Amino acid sequence: MADKGTSQQPLTLRLKSVEELPPYVSQEGPLQVRNQHVFSMVEDVLYHIALGNKSHDLKDMFHDVKFVCFGGSPGRMRKFAEYMVEALKHKLPAGQGLVDIAGGSDRYVLYKVGPVLSVSHGMGIPSLSIIFHEVYKLLYHAQCTDVTFFRIGTSGGLGLEPGSVVITEEAVDGLLRPYMEVIVMGQIKEHPSYLSKELAKELQALASDKDGYQTIIGKTMCTNDFYEGQARLDGAFCDHSEADKMKFLQRMHKEGIRNIEMESLCFAAYSYRAGIKSAVVCVTLLDRLKGDQISTPHDVMEDWQMRPQRLVAKYIRQKLGMD
Amino acid sequence: MADKGTSQQPLTLRLKSVEELPPYVSQEGPLQVRNQHVFSMVEDVLYHIALGNKSHDLKDMFHDVKFVCFGGSPGRMRKFAEYMVEALKHKLPAGQGLVDIAGGSDRYVLYKVGPVLSVSHGMGIPSLSIIFHEVYKLLYHAQCTDVTFFRIGTSGGLGLEPGSVVITEEAVDGLLRPYMEVIVMGQIKEHPSYLSKELAKELQALASDKDGYQTIIGKTMCTNDFYEGQARLDGAFCDHSEADKMKFLQRMHKEGIRNIEMESLCFAAYSYRAGIKSAVVCVTLLDRLKGDQISTPHDVMEDWQMRPQRLVAKYIRQKLGMD
Repeated sequence: MADKGTSQQPLTLRLKSVEELPPYVSQEGPLQVRNQHVFSMVEDVLYHIALGNKSHDLKDMFHDVKFVCFGGSPGRMRKFAEYMVEALKHKLPAGQGLVDIAGGSDRYVLYKVGPVLSVSHGMGIPSLSIIFHEVYKLLYHAQCTDVTFFRIGTSGGLGLEPGSVVITEEAVDGLLRPYMEVIVMGQIKEHPSYLSKELAKELQALASDKDGYQTIIGKTMCTNDFYEGQARLDGAFCDHSEADKMKFLQRMHKEGIRNIEMESLCFAAYSYRAGIKSAVVCVTLLDRLKGDQISTPHDVMEDWQMRPQRLVAKYIRQKLGMD
Repeated sequence: MADKGTSQQPLTLRLKSVEELPPYVSQEGPLQVRNQHVFSMVEDVLYHIALGNKSHDLKDMFHDVKFVCFGGSPGRMRKFAEYMVEALKHKLPAGQGLVDIAGGSDRYVLYKVGPVLSVSHGMGIPSLSIIFHEVYKLLYHAQCTDVTFFRIGTSGGLGLEPGSVVITEEAVDGLLRPYMEVIVMGQIKEHPSYLSKELAKELQALASDKDGYQTIIGKTMCTNDFYEGQARLDGAFCDHSEADKMKFLQRMHKEGIRNIEMESLCFAAYSYRAGIKSAVVCVTLLDRLKGDQISTPHDVMEDWQMRPQRLVAKYIRQKLGMD
């Protein structure tokens, strides 16, 4: 693969192992971006969220942020912000309501409730990647300290009762590789997708037997395609059989994979690279060992989607000394 | 790379060349999906657009569709639908307006104006991939015939006056490879990203010297990351210098790349695989040989974003015998 490009000169150089990557450390003091060019930029336009360090006083707006919660759907992330208003007993002055701070763009939504940002990331790694870059730069311009990131999402489960919650122990790609490939100027760079094991355990400790559903720690597979990429039989394209699918999914289950989604690999890799403690908490909408289609009634699904939100809200309340 | 996985058994098998892929042919008669499992499904829930072949009479709703136009932003695709109402002199009965047919989901928007569907695809290949699968199945259930697909989008230009329009001759990835990799059950499958050269020429022929901007045919690079992936210096992460960036971009320009975006590779590969004639038409928002940041005033950008829309509308009017 290294020199298979169509151009005359080979363009690819794969870094041999994750050990060759620069070491990443936890951030201490105000959060720093990993790009010295940003330090000297006169203006930084955060294009996809319609904010900027000249057009807005980002420090005034965001300096108190301690928790950033990402999720795919804009509607769900608005609901999470509304839920946090209750959970944090956050007082909104009479006549005021939550507004989407990224309202000048229709690419993502961004809500703020005290120290909590609620951000949509759309679907898939590239979409998450863009908002990660821009939120991270936002926090840098705002001189934030001690920030923790969460992805609260949905996923397909493996061998779990639908509605179960999975806290990701390790994110891997469709080939079980625990790193994210980023192609940069003809080189494939591999970024390890480490997540904080400590944070995962702290979150699991907040789950209760009385919840009425399981909350487990397990491996998460992250794919770039929802249909073929997750071995589904119900896409517009499919060259495999039911037997192939079951064999693959059972094998993944044996490897410790407990759920499959489309963003955890980048979320883990970029958080680690940024030195930001992070966790991925997803509810499973179906058991992929039993089917492909998501046809659970809307109201049941709505309730399930609250489960990762409630867990993360509990964690935030605890850290703020409210519980 | 072939057996570098962390599992004990090697999981990867790379198809040796595009010649080994099954041949794809143009669709004749009602559009068929490339998945025999779909033929025997009792119900098909198109989850991310909240439609289904049992819950909705898809044939009644969509049978007359001939042109599907995809674009990233939901707001822009609503504007395109509104523009098509004018362009096709489409009469909406008194008291009726356009509604988002996918309104039951907040993942994508879907508008219909006579034979034209206007669909948002979000950002990046995985997001486009999901909506492509589901729209393609929608057209199959609706028994549509002779459908043409367009992506009307935005991009960064190379060596072009900002506001220029690029019709994609060939879509390549960040390593200049003219195919899309899809990881399916441990195998990396390579799908060639061919586009209709004939359609590209037909579109360019509709551009005019009087437009006040260039409309050219050129190669498009499709990346999975907006910042590092496109050699930008203004992301949250960056390990390269301005000189590295310029060297890379100038080399890409020499290779015939005229713009860079994040969806064309999948759009081309899936359209080809489906046997659907397709074109990618993008406006360039900046010249990447001169900078990274997008800081053009909002109203100028709005006008530029209409340029691909106007070209595709012209094509559709011509095909419908209106010009």
